[in-house]
Amino acid sequence: MTKLRLGYIGLGRMGKPMAINLLKAGYPLIVYNRSHGKVQELVNLGALAATSPKQVAAESDVVFTNLPDTPDVLAVALGKDGIIEGAHEGLICIDNSTIKPSASREIYAALKPLGMSCLDAPVSGGDIGAQQGTLAIMVGGDADALEKVMPILQVIGKTITHVGGPGSGQVAKAANQIMVAAQMVAMGELLIFAQKAGANPRKVVEAIKGGAAQCWTLDVKPQRLFAGNREPGFRSALQAKDLNIIMETAREYGLSLPSVALDNQLYAALCAMDLGELDNSGIISIIETLNNEALRIDEE
Amino acid sequence: MTKLRLGYIGLGRMGKPMAINLLKAGYPLIVYNRSHGKVQELVNLGALAATSPKQVAAESDVVFTNLPDTPDVLAVALGKDGIIEGAHEGLICIDNSTIKPSASREIYAALKPLGMSCLDAPVSGGDIGAQQGTLAIMVGGDADALEKVMPILQVIGKTITHVGGPGSGQVAKAANQIMVAAQMVAMGELLIFAQKAGANPRKVVEAIKGGAAQCWTLDVKPQRLFAGNREPGFRSALQAKDLNIIMETAREYGLSLPSVALDNQLYAALCAMDLGELDNSGIISIIETLNNEALRIDEE
Repeated sequence: MTKLRLGYIGLGRMGKPMAINLLKAGYPLIVYNRSHGKVQELVNLGALAATSPKQVAAESDVVFTNLPDTPDVLAVALGKDGIIEGAHEGLICIDNSTIKPSASREIYAALKPLGMSCLDAPVSGGDIGAQQGTLAIMVGGDADALEKVMPILQVIGKTITHVGGPGSGQVAKAANQIMVAAQMVAMGELLIFAQKAGANPRKVVEAIKGGAAQCWTLDVKPQRLFAGNREPGFRSALQAKDLNIIMETAREYGLSLPSVALDNQLYAALCAMDLGELDNSGIISIIETLNNEALRIDEE
Repeated sequence: MTKLRLGYIGLGRMGKPMAINLLKAGYPLIVYNRSHGKVQELVNLGALAATSPKQVAAESDVVFTNLPDTPDVLAVALGKDGIIEGAHEGLICIDNSTIKPSASREIYAALKPLGMSCLDAPVSGGDIGAQQGTLAIMVGGDADALEKVMPILQVIGKTITHVGGPGSGQVAKAANQIMVAAQMVAMGELLIFAQKAGANPRKVVEAIKGGAAQCWTLDVKPQRLFAGNREPGFRSALQAKDLNIIMETAREYGLSLPSVALDNQLYAALCAMDLGELDNSGIISIIETLNNEALRIDEE
């Protein structure tokens, strides 16, 4: 059985290691990226270089996209020299970007009549998960298309969940980000609260992390903050972008989401302070600013 | 070695099973409760009945209190016929209530000069944890007093953490409730978001619960909500009360806590709708009301 020919468009912080893993798994790979430096890295590893998303689509059986935001994916999929111009019967599109669910549905609807199938497949797990091939992948779209590409997805991810029809993967990713943002903001508030109210935040976290408040966020992030480490991890600018997507989707559906709206504004403030490059746990910087109180770094 | 004589004041939903566990562990126990019916239950199991907190204090080596709110604890500790009137050298007071940290410190400061030591020791784990003796106990106060009563606390709790000086246990409990409330509200929003945006909320939870959003709340609560079960667990009225305590404490310390303020208002709305008897996950009722959309109960 001949291996499927893969294409990868968007060789950023996430896309590049994912593309490398596909290449290492032995798949023929053709890549495209706006800036050419990263293309060359992949070519050095054995990939072919394309001059447009159209060419990637024309010469692949499965095309991945991994781009910063909704307009980028729409342009690459449906714009001039886009995937749609290289469309052919049976081509499967897998979008690993985090974008608006409605955009994923629009792309699905535009490409389906051309014999293609589109899967929205946003990921969670950060650049480390991308490098190690341990991402969680939330998939929306046709079950039969997912079945065909499952062995490929298993190269880049560990947990692959078919959530439902087109856009459902994006809805799940958005839901994920609602919870993550809430935990990050609450963690920032509870640490500054504890310190100002005269307790040792480190002891407080120790006392609560095994109970009803238990979460991955409290398991992993406080020790980094106590050590003065606010490097990403997952960048706050992306957390802010994802919250923008959720708010835009909320408007499309006429939804009222008070805590998302608040978290969106707090991350917007962080970006306004030019701190978008911090880890998403860096939202504590805003809580510190609001309270004129810096989390103490201790030596323990 | 003679067993320490224990007193228990406040035989409510939490206090009664905790007092029963102490009795079953073989400690002599004298109890007081405003309504007499519950006192009689304990007397039937071998406890003595007191006519006032003062009498409990006078006839005990260690006095527990477990009362609804800050004013109740202040009255029982420092008011007429209160513990202070039965104070004696070496008496240790353990308050299992969830109250304002500043009130715990006030009680500590008032009773310390009388030769007493006070531990604020709020608990987490609900009435089931109280019955099974598996509570998490967050302790503020003197380390030597805690050391003396540790074998007793191990009867009622599984995890006992000394957080710091007086009030620190209450600060930890407040911090716990900041995170729990944030997760409950976010869970309500993400479920209604997922449903309105066209995905199956059950599948969405399945896709996200193992990743960065992982928390005890998502592990345990959605399946109850999907089954139409909003019974406590932990009552929303108490979640609302605890958020009030945090906001009052924030005002005492001049703290700005945007997400706590929002969660406080949402739980206030739930209580205003006479839904305070729901589980704290019942906050989704407010998100449903805001969006005129009920979470679908499915049969899976």
